[in-house]
Amino acid sequence: MTERSVAQNAELALLLEVSSTPKPGNVDREREYDDLRFEHFMAGAVGARPGLERAAVGDAVGSAFEHAVEGMAGQSAGNTQFGALLVLTPLVAAAGDGDLTRGGVDSVVRGTTVADAASFYRAFEHVDVAVDDPPDDLESLDVRRGSDAIPELESRELTLFDVMESSADVDGVAAEWASEFDRVFSAGERLLDDSGPVADRASRAFFELLAAEPDTFVVTRQDRATAEEVQRRARAVLDGDEDATAFAEELVDRDVNPGTTADLVAGTLFVALERGLVV
Amino acid sequence: MTERSVAQNAELALLLEVSSTPKPGNVDREREYDDLRFEHFMAGAVGARPGLERAAVGDAVGSAFEHAVEGMAGQSAGNTQFGALLVLTPLVAAAGDGDLTRGGVDSVVRGTTVADAASFYRAFEHVDVAVDDPPDDLESLDVRRGSDAIPELESRELTLFDVMESSADVDGVAAEWASEFDRVFSAGERLLDDSGPVADRASRAFFELLAAEPDTFVVTRQDRATAEEVQRRARAVLDGDEDATAFAEELVDRDVNPGTTADLVAGTLFVALERGLVV
Repeated sequence: MTERSVAQNAELALLLEVSSTPKPGNVDREREYDDLRFEHFMAGAVGARPGLERAAVGDAVGSAFEHAVEGMAGQSAGNTQFGALLVLTPLVAAAGDGDLTRGGVDSVVRGTTVADAASFYRAFEHVDVAVDDPPDDLESLDVRRGSDAIPELESRELTLFDVMESSADVDGVAAEWASEFDRVFSAGERLLDDSGPVADRASRAFFELLAAEPDTFVVTRQDRATAEEVQRRARAVLDGDEDATAFAEELVDRDVNPGTTADLVAGTLFVALERGLVV
Repeated sequence: MTERSVAQNAELALLLEVSSTPKPGNVDREREYDDLRFEHFMAGAVGARPGLERAAVGDAVGSAFEHAVEGMAGQSAGNTQFGALLVLTPLVAAAGDGDLTRGGVDSVVRGTTVADAASFYRAFEHVDVAVDDPPDDLESLDVRRGSDAIPELESRELTLFDVMESSADVDGVAAEWASEFDRVFSAGERLLDDSGPVADRASRAFFELLAAEPDTFVVTRQDRATAEEVQRRARAVLDGDEDATAFAEELVDRDVNPGTTADLVAGTLFVALERGLVV
């Protein structure tokens, strides 16, 4: 066997994330949407790899992320893995630097610059991403403005870490950036200690993360009540009180997609792969 | 959208091949074996990419193939895509050279050397591949001898094309090498003209190839009668006289795996992607 590189493990994490099943409401091997199919996630992962390679060799996190998103968007379904790449890019940078730890990735994200923030905003020009309206005082920093927001970033001297920290309370990926990726590392360690096929372990990791906190993507696209219902029912699946497959079918039918939790699973798989998870 | 590179399309072809379903007897999104799972094919495709990149930039076909196989073998299930890589490598070399045509790939394979043949034999040392016993007069060239067979290759001045041509009547991949990859190009053109999700098109391509000729991997692992039965029943599925899913379940239960046909589908998908198939 040859060793996979850091970027290969990151790409594989994206592929294993979408391959694991069931993951209620998300595209997986057994469930897809007419306009967002399993094949789009395969192409998204393949396309993202060159950007992930840049992060692994120490390119700026923002520019590596933007490049990964641009490559990911090279398929016809639009946004497949924007959030997952936002989780993975700093983890890949830390791993490339030989320090894939909570402290290592915290140094990476706290070391981001205003230029990284500008790249992050430019990344929104490659693909439509569902986001909430910003508060009134932050309208000029609405990510949907793309590069038009860059002068404002520069005048306020906001780094990418600052931008993420400011939305940590409404976005589960930003919350990881602001808290040493603690949920991702904890879930990665549990996944490594788990047993059985990787696809099953990743599905369990998904349920555990979903049961622990409301999914912020569901809050954005539906509302907090729905996110809390999903959280409660994920808990019921783990407790054996609800059927995982029926729950998965229902969420797809209702177009309720706990995508932030899936993004965290991609990071979880990457941590586990880098720490020796055998596939 | 950014364009995928030749090597990215080859990797994506491997991923889309295993993602398409149903593909009776083969691992696909909905069926797997306990010791050969969907996740192993994801890791195999990711691992193969550096070797495919070498083929795309004009490295020797044999050494690029050996490198791809070595990377593919970097997962715990052994052989996932040896045959598919033997189809893809010369196609990737032709595409990298800007001439992905029957004539272009024929030039590539006829241009192989004794050194390419030696690399091909070395590739068998990275992974166990199910092959038939060779005829008595070719025992010294049994691929399972790996690099021990190289002096014999050299003394007979056999190129990789010679080696493949000599097994064209018993191996469906070798038959492509000896006939300008005609079945792959024809299937690729049909897949491009087809409509609907790529996963469905690839499944139809699989059934059409399977119905047209006995799968040589089934001949090797079972016998010719089984291969002919599988061919006949693939025809029945296409004619609407047999249920595809039930047939797929039955072949998995019987451990009958038309793997050569799956290898050709990987090539088919690559040709279609290079010619503009939208994913």
